[in-house]
Amino acid sequence: MATLIERVAAGDRRALAVLISRLEREDPEALEILSQLHRRTGRAMVVGITGAPGTGKSTLTAALGALLRKGAAGRDPQRVGILAVDPTSPFTGGAILGDRIRMRDLAGDEGVFIRSMASRGALGGLSRATDSAVRALDAAGFDAILVETVGVGQAETDISRQAQTVVVVVTPGLGDDIQALKAGILEIADILVINKADLPGADSAAGSLRAMLDLGGGAENDWRPPILKTVGTTGEGVERLAQEVFRHREHLLRSGEGERRERERAQADLERRLSGRLLARWRAAAGRDVAEMARKVVARECSPEEAVEKLLG
Amino acid sequence: MATLIERVAAGDRRALAVLISRLEREDPEALEILSQLHRRTGRAMVVGITGAPGTGKSTLTAALGALLRKGAAGRDPQRVGILAVDPTSPFTGGAILGDRIRMRDLAGDEGVFIRSMASRGALGGLSRATDSAVRALDAAGFDAILVETVGVGQAETDISRQAQTVVVVVTPGLGDDIQALKAGILEIADILVINKADLPGADSAAGSLRAMLDLGGGAENDWRPPILKTVGTTGEGVERLAQEVFRHREHLLRSGEGERRERERAQADLERRLSGRLLARWRAAAGRDVAEMARKVVARECSPEEAVEKLLG
Repeated sequence: MATLIERVAAGDRRALAVLISRLEREDPEALEILSQLHRRTGRAMVVGITGAPGTGKSTLTAALGALLRKGAAGRDPQRVGILAVDPTSPFTGGAILGDRIRMRDLAGDEGVFIRSMASRGALGGLSRATDSAVRALDAAGFDAILVETVGVGQAETDISRQAQTVVVVVTPGLGDDIQALKAGILEIADILVINKADLPGADSAAGSLRAMLDLGGGAENDWRPPILKTVGTTGEGVERLAQEVFRHREHLLRSGEGERRERERAQADLERRLSGRLLARWRAAAGRDVAEMARKVVARECSPEEAVEKLLG
Repeated sequence: MATLIERVAAGDRRALAVLISRLEREDPEALEILSQLHRRTGRAMVVGITGAPGTGKSTLTAALGALLRKGAAGRDPQRVGILAVDPTSPFTGGAILGDRIRMRDLAGDEGVFIRSMASRGALGGLSRATDSAVRALDAAGFDAILVETVGVGQAETDISRQAQTVVVVVTPGLGDDIQALKAGILEIADILVINKADLPGADSAAGSLRAMLDLGGGAENDWRPPILKTVGTTGEGVERLAQEVFRHREHLLRSGEGERRERERAQADLERRLSGRLLARWRAAAGRDVAEMARKVVARECSPEEAVEKLLG
């Protein structure tokens, strides 16, 4: 265990892979290792990259990762971690990991760590495993951690919790599709990217996004999400994206917003952990049969509200 | 309060709208009303309709709703409730509810209830409000409740919890986009729909989906998701969709799968409610300062794991 801690702290990619696999299984020793590594965390820049399927997020993530690794926006070369988050699925069993293929040219480099997260655990397991993997990469000295999440909808709540900077990717097809704008995704964006900007309609998509931002007001803090155009496949616009990512990081530091968000995140995390522990403790102590009570709810013998009162009372 | 219960139970749409608004705010009296209405629930057919933005879900939902209302697949006309679930967003403030416009021709009918859910509450608030609205519609005697959710990704966990039958909508554009298939969305589908099937590529999309289903094995129960082609704007294929929805409902009843799912759902719901109550109770009794502990975690004075032990110990 001590050896694994040391090796991860030294940035050893194989040790990191082992640790993350064990964290995915919620192995207790791995969780203890993570706890001991906590003091080494807090240095990485964590960037979430999200958007609907088909927006080319994976390609863009790989392009951004490669650029940061080389040294972009006048910065030193970064050590780059990429986590591709796939929802629990039998289809992600390894056969069709397109992302990995696209990211192949990054894979030989010791300063790059790529992982496709594919937990098969309980509800919430994937989200916990991703949190843990981010912390492990941070402790291992990765400077930039890119978390690519498939999805719009409620996935946004996860990514905006996990990342410091959220990049929302859309495509020019957006035009008449009011749903993309309704999907709650704009409000979590720190940076908006129109990828595949070589397709027709990029300018009108940019116009729509600008109008939406104007509508939303959004002067709660001093940051107005920039709207960028990129072509992930050619790398066009990706340097500018890197610049904006760094600029947002500086904004977070300077304004105190970063610290505020991190505290909120830590508090929500503690509350989740506490709830889980309190439920387990109550279950052991009270010896009540939740399954039997669920049966009564389904049989309409009592309502869920009444069931909870009975269980706690 | 007694009047509101009676009016909702009698299927009064205005009373229902009032109740749902109060449930969105988590008004305690409204929650008590819902508890009292619980015995009247359990009769409705709850269908989730989900997919990425741009797949035409709203139009398809409206078309299916209209057909069920008229009487489809040899059934009597149904009373139809439609819940359009938008994630928490300042952009859904009422100005740009495209869905409502599309559904206008349904709106004059007493046997139809349409609601765009747009909670601004805490994390999880939208999901709770949707659960509550489904229960209220069920108690009010709506036969078919269609829950349209924007999103792929983690939203699927919610919709597969809330609905008995999940319809996943894709478009022919899918072809080369491996991400749509990776999005965990196939495994929650009871029925797969290729909407906009008049566009090129519908047959090849169907072929891809079939191949994915073959890969997944999926013989855990006797149901293999049918793959349908629809054109929501013209209504083509929607009668067939209605038939498959009813056929899946019968499968759930006959196989016992429906009851099994409902019990699991009820148990998970009770556990969520218990966790929340236990946390509130602990907070009041222990008087510990979670925010202060979160500060220590952020300052790296202790890890979250250590913080939880300290708080509980």
